Amino acid sequence: MKTEYVPPEWAFEFHGHRCPFLPIGYRMGKLAMEYLKVEREKDHGFFVFPECGEGHPQICFIDGIQVITGVTYGKSLMEKTYYGKLAAIFFHPKKGAVRYSLKPEFIDAFGKFEFFAYRKKGIEPSQVPQKAADEVINWVYEQTDDFMFKVEAKPDFKFSPVKGSFNKAKCSICGEYVFERYLRTKDGKPVCIPCSEY
Amino acid sequence: MKTEYVPPEWAFEFHGHRCPFLPIGYRMGKLAMEYLKVEREKDHGFFVFPECGEGHPQICFIDGIQVITGVTYGKSLMEKTYYGKLAAIFFHPKKGAVRYSLKPEFIDAFGKFEFFAYRKKGIEPSQVPQKAADEVINWVYEQTDDFMFKVEAKPDFKFSPVKGSFNKAKCSICGEYVFERYLRTKDGKPVCIPCSEY
Repeated sequence: MKTEYVPPEWAFEFHGHRCPFLPIGYRMGKLAMEYLKVEREKDHGFFVFPECGEGHPQICFIDGIQVITGVTYGKSLMEKTYYGKLAAIFFHPKKGAVRYSLKPEFIDAFGKFEFFAYRKKGIEPSQVPQKAADEVINWVYEQTDDFMFKVEAKPDFKFSPVKGSFNKAKCSICGEYVFERYLRTKDGKPVCIPCSEY
Repeated sequence: MKTEYVPPEWAFEFHGHRCPFLPIGYRMGKLAMEYLKVEREKDHGFFVFPECGEGHPQICFIDGIQVITGVTYGKSLMEKTYYGKLAAIFFHPKKGAVRYSLKPEFIDAFGKFEFFAYRKKGIEPSQVPQKAADEVINWVYEQTDDFMFKVEAKPDFKFSPVKGSFNKAKCSICGEYVFERYLRTKDGKPVCIPCSEY
């Protein structure tokens, strides 16, 4: 078992349940950071674009990525692409970009575990018997990086975060503060988007 | 100091730096859960819509919400509305919805702390002297809920998560798995969105 790929206990507490995708995302993020030679992000300089969408399972790996990389949704460093794929692009302006995806062979082998039989029956992850969850989690820890991940350098990947501003003003209708980028105008007065009804 | 509003140490580790917005989001989430009478979300039944956007500061409260509520981006339970506001709607299908926003008076008082003078000079949160960060964090812990938050019941709020499916197929061009919702067709064959070039 590759202990360096075992997330800290608080990662499962954060995520809310014990599933195999949290450790997969943790490992994907760790490998991508090593590939790009970047440290865990304390502030706002590293970006991840998970290629997942909505209405499909197995996206829990995104929380594993948040945990290991420090690239969090709350710091505006992460945005899904809505491609419905189990992959992510990791981008650091000074270090470049790399894409990690789960190989189809891994996904096929993985999908045979009992854990997924429960999930397909509509049983939520926290209600799957612990033994079934641990079985697949432990199996994942034993797989090689090469069996699990396709790795692609993305030298042409481009992304520029929008220019930030601290400026804000009050909406003339609801009185709440709005950051300038999102301020709209109605009847000549500054308003927020909901009050604008645009 | 209201110790029940102090996030666990791992919350700051997750977030990457020590700023006042992580505890604000933690507190906002805790109050919203009490208001709606919901428990921390283990699986996929509780949703939060932060009204923040991009290119503006102070959105770190979203990570505090992820930490306390279990409503995480990696479980597809959270989506920003891009209104540029320091607010969030909390929604549970069986319990209803409530909106919490920071009051302008609180934002004004808060904005006078030295922490923000550093931030406006472009200094990243992890580089702000610890003393300045602790000063504003401790001040926030001492404020009343009423001074900080406007609370609005949202009885008419509607949201239906999309219907989920485990079905997937391989893209006929790149060979990667795609969940069905995101599968497209090109020259009569199933393809992923990037390969479709649509």
